[in-house]
Amino acid sequence: MSAAAAPRRGFPDAEFEARLARAQAGMRTAGLEALLLTTQPELYWFSGFLTQFWQSPTRPWFLVVPARGKPVAVIPGIGGECMGRTWIEDIRIWSSPDPEDDGVSLLAASLRELTGSGPVGLPMGPETHLRMPLADFERLRAALPGVFFVDATPLIRALRAVKSEAEVAKIRYAARAASAAFARVPEILAAGMAETEAFRAFRFAGLEQGLDEVAYLVGGAAPGGYGDIISPPSGRLLTPGDVLILDVGGVYDGYYCDFDRNFAVGAVDDAVRRAHATVWQATEAGLAAARPGATCADLFHAMQRVMAAGGAADANVGRLGHGLGMQLTEFPSIAPWDGTVLEPGMVLTLEPGMQFAPGKVMVHEENIVIRDDGPELLTVRAPREMPVIR
Amino acid sequence: MSAAAAPRRGFPDAEFEARLARAQAGMRTAGLEALLLTTQPELYWFSGFLTQFWQSPTRPWFLVVPARGKPVAVIPGIGGECMGRTWIEDIRIWSSPDPEDDGVSLLAASLRELTGSGPVGLPMGPETHLRMPLADFERLRAALPGVFFVDATPLIRALRAVKSEAEVAKIRYAARAASAAFARVPEILAAGMAETEAFRAFRFAGLEQGLDEVAYLVGGAAPGGYGDIISPPSGRLLTPGDVLILDVGGVYDGYYCDFDRNFAVGAVDDAVRRAHATVWQATEAGLAAARPGATCADLFHAMQRVMAAGGAADANVGRLGHGLGMQLTEFPSIAPWDGTVLEPGMVLTLEPGMQFAPGKVMVHEENIVIRDDGPELLTVRAPREMPVIR
Repeated sequence: MSAAAAPRRGFPDAEFEARLARAQAGMRTAGLEALLLTTQPELYWFSGFLTQFWQSPTRPWFLVVPARGKPVAVIPGIGGECMGRTWIEDIRIWSSPDPEDDGVSLLAASLRELTGSGPVGLPMGPETHLRMPLADFERLRAALPGVFFVDATPLIRALRAVKSEAEVAKIRYAARAASAAFARVPEILAAGMAETEAFRAFRFAGLEQGLDEVAYLVGGAAPGGYGDIISPPSGRLLTPGDVLILDVGGVYDGYYCDFDRNFAVGAVDDAVRRAHATVWQATEAGLAAARPGATCADLFHAMQRVMAAGGAADANVGRLGHGLGMQLTEFPSIAPWDGTVLEPGMVLTLEPGMQFAPGKVMVHEENIVIRDDGPELLTVRAPREMPVIR
Repeated sequence: MSAAAAPRRGFPDAEFEARLARAQAGMRTAGLEALLLTTQPELYWFSGFLTQFWQSPTRPWFLVVPARGKPVAVIPGIGGECMGRTWIEDIRIWSSPDPEDDGVSLLAASLRELTGSGPVGLPMGPETHLRMPLADFERLRAALPGVFFVDATPLIRALRAVKSEAEVAKIRYAARAASAAFARVPEILAAGMAETEAFRAFRFAGLEQGLDEVAYLVGGAAPGGYGDIISPPSGRLLTPGDVLILDVGGVYDGYYCDFDRNFAVGAVDDAVRRAHATVWQATEAGLAAARPGATCADLFHAMQRVMAAGGAADANVGRLGHGLGMQLTEFPSIAPWDGTVLEPGMVLTLEPGMQFAPGKVMVHEENIVIRDDGPELLTVRAPREMPVIR
């Protein structure tokens, strides 16, 4: 078990009240009569409803946030007891799945009751999707001739991007647990082990160190450097000269850490060591730049400059980090086109990655929270030199 | 490690060719010029593209299946190498995320090239969702004035419901590994252990027995029976008199098992033992009825009759089992309204659940594949009497 005490699970009702007040203030500014939410992070953020049952695609789940008063849950009966333990009071259930009407008429009636003729906000923009059948959404629209839907992505992004201290504590705990698991890699992995077994050993370590689950684990090893950072493990054996990357999304109470670590299997090329030093230094530049008032574009350029000086070719990863919280990746993007101004409480990954040879990339990653006077590292900072697996 | 050898990862190209031939025959029948697919299971089924990167909501991924010729991938550059290892040859990438045009124009151009004026099939029906921003889908439609989208859910369901032997082997391996983990529960769990620790111990056991991941684990314990089967674990201690249910979705190479097991913590009430005996017998009735030619409704009634005779009140779970494969729950539903005729190769859960006292439910589950002469159990059949945790 991790030495750090695990933060209390859930959130006090006062936190949900404060979130709702922020949301309703934003809704007034945007002229929204209600929000219609269909995805796991939004339902967790507004209600505290947390279940892995979202993995089943069968049933839709709805939360309506009115302009005044508490959110209203419109959900399958199978979730009634779980939702009943949250701060939500108005819980409307139907027996799902129902091939004739899978919650559409109940949702339509609820929206009619809770809204007037003004717009209803629905996340429709980047990084969102509508988690209900498209045909049912068309039915909903047809059942609500007086209601029109507008994009609520900017509001939801603004609400979720700045984390509370209780949220930060969960992410920090996950990041420390995963850091402790990474520290054990040189003792638990060895040359000659299959990638699949190496991944399994790391999953064990993550659970041992206090993660609820190692929800995301990708990476791999290749001689002289890897070219792909999103694949599942192969049956290939770890071989001296390989660079191994493990990129972990570890979860505690519904909140993710997301970072990677690189390891040398035996002796590796100088080019590999130089690339690692370069992305490590790029992260230093990112840490120095990550202050309130700076933009995501500023952060991008601070890291990119170091990598360009270090000989980076285009790695085509599109960005050098992102927001982090209830999802593995969240708004904003550390990219040249993202002018989002950093605020205290934003949780970010710094993820400088560069192509240092044809088909060979090196990616580095840390998790931070923006504070008044600069970043607080949530991860334990990676060593400057890649640890070695024998 | 599990005694059984792990099936080979991936699928031979011939399997993808056979799947495509089935799909294109169905497309001809339905008059579809192409399929547009956006979700993980469809992309895995048609291409073999497997990555946990789907957990990041940031980037959309598209596969276009034309009426003739191989599928065309339209994907973010970060996935190019991973997709390049599949049997797909035509891979079109863009640098994502791109806030100006996140793949929409590339997808529109691809659809224009690959289709004429006929309809494009898109899953829009029950248990589906569109995994791209709704605003981008509207942009896509606007960019394709000559193309109209129709619901491809019936075709996709028919294709996916009948599994190949290679698919069955992966599900069987996951089910056997999870069965072996369940067999160890009486030795690895004990009264006085917190639910969170019990869940963690079970995750370890699942990995030890050969699962790639324990992707889904819900349940809980309560005195005299539980009322909720979808919640994460609490910090409450397992206490004599509790009934503990663990419901696991264990994954091997992208395929799920999904079943639960009940345990008595010390001595439990007679009512609990009777309820367990009833759902066990209901499963026997389901196994006897699960033959080609029977309908899902037949299966439902076979199990429901036993539970009604055993004193079941309405448990409001809506169905008594479902399809299983690349998702925790898939088409069809074992429900009175589902007339789907069972065919050899369909993989199903039998999941009889009943309310046996106010707020107390008992749920049981096995995984089967339909064979010519009846069901093959993929799970190791649950014991008739609940195992006891001391």
